Amino acid sequence: MNKTRLEAFSDGVIAIIITIMVLEIKVPHTTDLDSLYALLPVFISYLLSFIYLGIYWGNHHHLFHAISKITSGVLWTNLNLLFWLSLIPFATGWMGENHFAPITVALYGVALLMPALAYYILQTLVVKNHLHPEAFEQAHQKQNVKGQISLVCYILAIAMAFYYTPISGILFVLVALMWIIPDKNIEKVFSENN
Amino acid sequence: MNKTRLEAFSDGVIAIIITIMVLEIKVPHTTDLDSLYALLPVFISYLLSFIYLGIYWGNHHHLFHAISKITSGVLWTNLNLLFWLSLIPFATGWMGENHFAPITVALYGVALLMPALAYYILQTLVVKNHLHPEAFEQAHQKQNVKGQISLVCYILAIAMAFYYTPISGILFVLVALMWIIPDKNIEKVFSENN
Amino acid sequence: MNKTRLEAFSDGVIAIIITIMVLEIKVPHTTDLDSLYALLPVFISYLLSFIYLGIYWGNHHHLFHAISKITSGVLWTNLNLLFWLSLIPFATGWMGENHFAPITVALYGVALLMPALAYYILQTLVVKNHLHPEAFEQAHQKQNVKGQISLVCYILAIAMAFYYTPISGILFVLVALMWIIPDKNIEKVFSENN
Amino acid sequence: MNKTRLEAFSDGVIAIIITIMVLEIKVPHTTDLDSLYALLPVFISYLLSFIYLGIYWGNHHHLFHAISKITSGVLWTNLNLLFWLSLIPFATGWMGENHFAPITVALYGVALLMPALAYYILQTLVVKNHLHPEAFEQAHQKQNVKGQISLVCYILAIAMAFYYTPISGILFVLVALMWIIPDKNIEKVFSENN
Repeated sequence: MNKTRLEAFSDGVIAIIITIMVLEIKVPHTTDLDSLYALLPVFISYLLSFIYLGIYWGNHHHLFHAISKITSGVLWTNLNLLFWLSLIPFATGWMGENHFAPITVALYGVALLMPALAYYILQTLVVKNHLHPEAFEQAHQKQNVKGQISLVCYILAIAMAFYYTPISGILFVLVALMWIIPDKNIEKVFSENN
Repeated sequence: MNKTRLEAFSDGVIAIIITIMVLEIKVPHTTDLDSLYALLPVFISYLLSFIYLGIYWGNHHHLFHAISKITSGVLWTNLNLLFWLSLIPFATGWMGENHFAPITVALYGVALLMPALAYYILQTLVVKNHLHPEAFEQAHQKQNVKGQISLVCYILAIAMAFYYTPISGILFVLVALMWIIPDKNIEKVFSENN
Repeated sequence: MNKTRLEAFSDGVIAIIITIMVLEIKVPHTTDLDSLYALLPVFISYLLSFIYLGIYWGNHHHLFHAISKITSGVLWTNLNLLFWLSLIPFATGWMGENHFAPITVALYGVALLMPALAYYILQTLVVKNHLHPEAFEQAHQKQNVKGQISLVCYILAIAMAFYYTPISGILFVLVALMWIIPDKNIEKVFSENN
Repeated sequence: MNKTRLEAFSDGVIAIIITIMVLEIKVPHTTDLDSLYALLPVFISYLLSFIYLGIYWGNHHHLFHAISKITSGVLWTNLNLLFWLSLIPFATGWMGENHFAPITVALYGVALLMPALAYYILQTLVVKNHLHPEAFEQAHQKQNVKGQISLVCYILAIAMAFYYTPISGILFVLVALMWIIPDKNIEKVFSENN
């Protein structure tokens, strides 16, 4: 099984998911600023999901960078990840169109939690199939910690959505920032604070 | 004729088919659990079709892995397969939106039967063009048997749809499982039972 | 300028065009055979356009197979071709939804004529940039003749649409067949008849 | 980090953006020339945006052609560019559907200004990461000047939209022409005039 084709297929699916989300930003039929302003929640939801899908694309790339053997198991756990990612546009559209109503924010949290779990399964399998699982695992330890923090944050965000949705929103943004900002910068901030 | 470009094009088309299906899961305008629950048949249909398209993508990859010569005939039988695959989102949407009404389940069966026949034609042609057709055919014998079982199941499912649709549904799931579960595991189960 | 990236981009655009056309086959809200039967013109239009886009993809591949230098002119004439190809789904949808009304059939003819002209311009430029333009032109002479027959047929089909649309339809099918059937078979038929 | 995968992903996203724009040209339900004529503003908007996205694709290719190292910063500034490009279909649709109403033309200007700024940031970062930043910068000096002229034109076009939209339209077309016409031809015209 060829790694290139699995990467190309995954890239294609992620590129399409990221782009069809923009179809949820429906062109308004009126030409005033209010009709644009009304789209702000849809726009913010789109921006957030765009960033999350960008993070998955980057991490996916790193994960497959080091491996050479693609087993049938890796193929299917990868498709499992793509399946859950493909549901993000739906959750994004529902949340944006309904101006962050509690249940839609909770579902958005679920829509982020599921691919995170799928990614965890994929990563575990890739590590197992690696020639030097221990060296690989050590290299991905930081990723692992980040992944676990993310899972906790998603679950918190789902629960918080029913009390006060802005807390969920802040959690979604913080997790995204944690993945975007390179590790060295985070370490620097921590060492400066201690 | 370059194999890489045929593979890349096929991957692109399958990636788009698999992703535009999700557009059938229309964002509800209400924010209650009932509106989500009403989408369950659409979601289940999407999941099933996602798995089937994943199976085709995997099998397509295996089929083209061993060959080097792409004739005009292979190009057109491959486009024939992509054409029938491209109709799966339509059948999926019709079945999901109408909560598995008999005629929609039957059409879904037809939508699975047609690419299965197209794949059979493609496989036959690829074997013919192969340098060592006999060795290749032997290696694909298991695939062939699975393909024939699938065809019978699809036809059964189409007929059963008019009597009792759950039987068709079970047949669709069983065929998918037969392709997902690696051959060795199936053999193991059979040898344990005997 | 890298040939691979131009090919990959063109493949991507053609793959998306071919697949979004299927979105024009709208899922009916009723579950009877009549609602399926009503989609027949849409289905036939889709099938025809799918074949035409497949032909363009194959020819595009052959055209770029032999060249190595991509000039700025080739890039833009290639984008010109992709632009006209991207309008085929619109013309297909309009023709299918309106059951082959004369004006829609004429516009479909225009939608086929424009990319044919764009392809002609692209081919002329590619030949010019070729290291051995004469050898290349000779190899593509048959393509050239086919291209000119196609142009005449499209113009005829546009004119005929206002008198008797089935003639236009037959012309569209004949042109498609001329491109699908390999040259050798055509020659064989002609030599048998003479 | 692998350059090929970043290029392939960017190509995929741009190919999808360029193609989903055509979905904004909604198939009319009537079959007369007037219903086609009514689509003219939508068609013109689509053509203009198609050209702009083609320009970005070409420039993106040139920018990444010379580099080998992809840092995390390049990855994210590239995603930033793709994000703003992905909003062009929305602005295109709004402008086309509302027949170039002032506010829609101004927003279209913003939709062109944002990716231009994003491209500027990306280019600056790519130059920094280059092995020979000075040689690279010199080679891209003409691009830089063009980029700065474009930014000024976009801002002018946004302001002019509220006074007389045709001026904005002319500015959009002129900027596009500046990028399409190869530098040598522009130089020739200038040297002939002086």
